[in-house]
Amino acid sequence: MKIAQVAPVFERVPPKAYGGTERVISYLTEELVRQGHEVTLFASGDSITRARLLSAMEQSRRFDARDHEWLMYQTIAMDQVNSLATEFDVIHFHTDYLHFPLTRKLAVPHVTTLHGRLDLPQLVPLYRHFHDIPLVSISESQRLPLPGANWRATVHHGLPSDLYEFHPQSEGYFAFVGRISPEKRVDRAIEIAVRCERPLYIAAKVDKADEPYFNEQIKARLNHPLIEYIGEIGDQEKQRLIGNAAALLFPIDWPEPFGIVMIESFACGTPVIAYRHGSIPEILRHRATGFAVSNQEEAIAAATCIGEIDREVCRKEFEHRFTAKHMADNYLRVYQQVQQDYESAGRRIQ
Amino acid sequence: MKIAQVAPVFERVPPKAYGGTERVISYLTEELVRQGHEVTLFASGDSITRARLLSAMEQSRRFDARDHEWLMYQTIAMDQVNSLATEFDVIHFHTDYLHFPLTRKLAVPHVTTLHGRLDLPQLVPLYRHFHDIPLVSISESQRLPLPGANWRATVHHGLPSDLYEFHPQSEGYFAFVGRISPEKRVDRAIEIAVRCERPLYIAAKVDKADEPYFNEQIKARLNHPLIEYIGEIGDQEKQRLIGNAAALLFPIDWPEPFGIVMIESFACGTPVIAYRHGSIPEILRHRATGFAVSNQEEAIAAATCIGEIDREVCRKEFEHRFTAKHMADNYLRVYQQVQQDYESAGRRIQ
Repeated sequence: MKIAQVAPVFERVPPKAYGGTERVISYLTEELVRQGHEVTLFASGDSITRARLLSAMEQSRRFDARDHEWLMYQTIAMDQVNSLATEFDVIHFHTDYLHFPLTRKLAVPHVTTLHGRLDLPQLVPLYRHFHDIPLVSISESQRLPLPGANWRATVHHGLPSDLYEFHPQSEGYFAFVGRISPEKRVDRAIEIAVRCERPLYIAAKVDKADEPYFNEQIKARLNHPLIEYIGEIGDQEKQRLIGNAAALLFPIDWPEPFGIVMIESFACGTPVIAYRHGSIPEILRHRATGFAVSNQEEAIAAATCIGEIDREVCRKEFEHRFTAKHMADNYLRVYQQVQQDYESAGRRIQ
Repeated sequence: MKIAQVAPVFERVPPKAYGGTERVISYLTEELVRQGHEVTLFASGDSITRARLLSAMEQSRRFDARDHEWLMYQTIAMDQVNSLATEFDVIHFHTDYLHFPLTRKLAVPHVTTLHGRLDLPQLVPLYRHFHDIPLVSISESQRLPLPGANWRATVHHGLPSDLYEFHPQSEGYFAFVGRISPEKRVDRAIEIAVRCERPLYIAAKVDKADEPYFNEQIKARLNHPLIEYIGEIGDQEKQRLIGNAAALLFPIDWPEPFGIVMIESFACGTPVIAYRHGSIPEILRHRATGFAVSNQEEAIAAATCIGEIDREVCRKEFEHRFTAKHMADNYLRVYQQVQQDYESAGRRIQ
């Protein structure tokens, strides 16, 4: 199949550091190439891929959101996709909504994966207008605020099966990985560890916007002897940190649309203790691959009996549901589906 | 002719207060309607027009540039234009570059007026990529940074001929009208007035971003007995203020792409003393409708002999070059030109 993958211009594919969307695009693209598809990746020129790479700009970078330079490059990228559209059997956009008007006149089946949170009131008029654009959600939960949109499927994220190794034994500590921000609730993770008298390793970056929160509400709590704050880490360190943990703590306080760190944890065989928000009930099987909890008492009870979770079950869950191959196969089914939709729409018009 | 005018979503047409682009779109639209054309205006639902109005949103508002809500509504507007495109003989965009990819597949002649400054380095790759999109500049000077773009014409702005009355006599004071910001150099205007011992009325708003500049560099200078600061004013007061002035002072320090207040001044019969930047040599005829100067000594000399300028010549200049009718006639020529371009491109393809 001739497939176009269209990435945002903010980050290269795969990203240098943080960048969930671009990581997933990379895993999907490389898996489709591995399966023998002809894939074209529209992404920044510093991207690394075995697909054909077409770029609106040489170097990705984090633009200042106040100037609109990113929009200029994204507009150029849209035009590049447009001009080559008929080369492809299907075009897969990962660029939010900017391309929606353009897709009206693309004589090619297309689908858009929405990677972000959708519970924002300003999205309602947008998706009411573009109610016919075929969309993929990354969890069933993600799509709830926009029930009238043209959802064609939910495709969970996946990781290459050999990206993380199975760690049959833990070293007994807990891990918190990601960002330090109010909705991630590292304060809850600290309380769980302290109450269970277990060490907690925190591998998390602090965005500029979250520095006041970090300084005022978190910093002092990091002084506890059980708490170790190690900042932002690379893939290798992440594997070691999560793989040797007794559990990943994910005590979020927002409608997480997916939560890729949970499947990284499963890939290592490490169970997850997560608050039951957003995608969590879909990703985490309660009492099988960890615990989905509603409050700190439940979280602490779960942490106390984390040894009851079979780490092999966690790894198997990853292998059966969350590999890049699984994700790519699901997307290939979506591509076939939008091709069929496209053909039957054509027949109706004739 | 069936003409679409596509306005930005930030402001209604005409704008409630400041909003140069939306004012010009309004004058052009109403003049085209007056001449008997079938005009459709794509603009916010609170716009006031005799044209057919189609709206992506009910109320215009100044969006926070950091969230992307404006982009959502502009995307909806693009889709509305797209879906009705074949109804029109020509589509006239005033929305920067967002629609460029879309125009590739519009089976309709189109042209885009660029209303802003173009001397920003990030625009170079954008217009290199979109080198074929037909553009109109609002001054010859405006287009200098992008010589390779597909400029089809320069069309100066125009005002309805009865918007301002001719004031044959001045009351001897000077006027400064617009914004207080570093590039507008109200400090120069104050110095000119003080050195000439003439009163200066300053009718100007201070944007939030310019408040530190206003407080630190301007505020104290407003205490001089010759200086009267009257804040932001409406159209009626503006006419009275400019019309009774001996000269409008426009001592700018940036490449002004047009400078609509200069033609407002001419409409009142009031000469202009302006620094020779950007569009000024095109708009102001030196020694006929005012003085184009290069430094404060020249400005003060000009202010001293401002009585030598014939106010009737200023009004005539407005009537001959800067009315809405003049602007609309020029645009109608552009529309014919892009129609011809479009047809000959079609013939080449056949």
